[in-house]
Amino acid sequence: MALLEAAAHVFAESGFDAASTRDIVTAAGLQQGALYHYYPGGKPELAEHVVELGFHMYAAPGSEPTHPNGLYLQMVVDASIALGYRTPRDKFAQAAARLATDQDQRTFGVLWNAYIPRVSAILQQSSEHGELLQGVRPEETAITWVEAFVGADIRYRKRLAEMPEAISRLNQTIVRGIATPETLVLLDASVERGALLYELEEEARAASDSAETVA
Amino acid sequence: MALLEAAAHVFAESGFDAASTRDIVTAAGLQQGALYHYYPGGKPELAEHVVELGFHMYAAPGSEPTHPNGLYLQMVVDASIALGYRTPRDKFAQAAARLATDQDQRTFGVLWNAYIPRVSAILQQSSEHGELLQGVRPEETAITWVEAFVGADIRYRKRLAEMPEAISRLNQTIVRGIATPETLVLLDASVERGALLYELEEEARAASDSAETVA
Repeated sequence: MALLEAAAHVFAESGFDAASTRDIVTAAGLQQGALYHYYPGGKPELAEHVVELGFHMYAAPGSEPTHPNGLYLQMVVDASIALGYRTPRDKFAQAAARLATDQDQRTFGVLWNAYIPRVSAILQQSSEHGELLQGVRPEETAITWVEAFVGADIRYRKRLAEMPEAISRLNQTIVRGIATPETLVLLDASVERGALLYELEEEARAASDSAETVA
Repeated sequence: MALLEAAAHVFAESGFDAASTRDIVTAAGLQQGALYHYYPGGKPELAEHVVELGFHMYAAPGSEPTHPNGLYLQMVVDASIALGYRTPRDKFAQAAARLATDQDQRTFGVLWNAYIPRVSAILQQSSEHGELLQGVRPEETAITWVEAFVGADIRYRKRLAEMPEAISRLNQTIVRGIATPETLVLLDASVERGALLYELEEEARAASDSAETVA
């Protein structure tokens, strides 16, 4: 197992404090020295790299909607349901979520710092395109959306298999409160949509992995 | 300092794993044996008692609204903004929140298990009284509401002073999506309302404390 993958497994299972570098290098089939060769900063630096890989967003602000419905709001829904679908299947996502919400870690807060500005920017575009109800404030909505995701993510830490369904339901509840009826009828917040996005990304990742070697 | 109060301080600062029973009894001015006298189950039992005291809800399902607006939805808002106002001021609330969201603890999940059924029951009453928009499902809304609270609670762990404002904003975002315009115009989700409820409860607690001795 590659070093990073081993680190993701151990951090996901044990959290930062209880994760031992010995367990990580053993799982990776390496000597202790190898870890410090790649990560001179040791465990904290390794944790930061895992968090970075675990969080990514399917759509960048400023990009155009890819879903046939052409909605900017779909981009936010997509990011949420795809991460919800990914989390039970991906130790990087699990490790990143855990490291970013354990309050004594250096990586605490990375989750909301990464997502709130991006969600906020896309909701601003969504608002400008007339997809949102009058009076909906993009930034406040983005904050609540991300907070709700984090709360659900924690709630399902021990019932990971239920997470895609939970995130799909959470998205349906939120969009019902902010989208115009015309937007609502076109949106897709289903678990199946999350699954499709996950599979597309895995294919893209596999294609990119075959082109370059990963440490 | 009383034993329970000392325990709340130590659990709030350190979390369950890092909290030592030695620190707790020292802060309480007691010997180690005293802890096991009151709590034969030791640290886990003490933690459970702290969580129990840290979570309480201002309104019980089945009770009548006390706010002059007579809204059931106000009862849910009240519970949320009052806990948001209490958290920075009360080590029991801080310790309970931390113990209930640290995923390896016995107390994990107490927060949502305690609140979701109660919020759901009150939202059901709110719906029956015509306060909610058509199509709003009480239980799904309750889940999202509690998840969002938990997410905000974690986000502000290191910026506790901002929590009342954050919870007030979160409530405003949620009610805007579920309440009828007639309900919305009467609701009060302000920080000041949270402060008032907190003060009323502190007075009631002080009156009850002077009547009975607390361990």
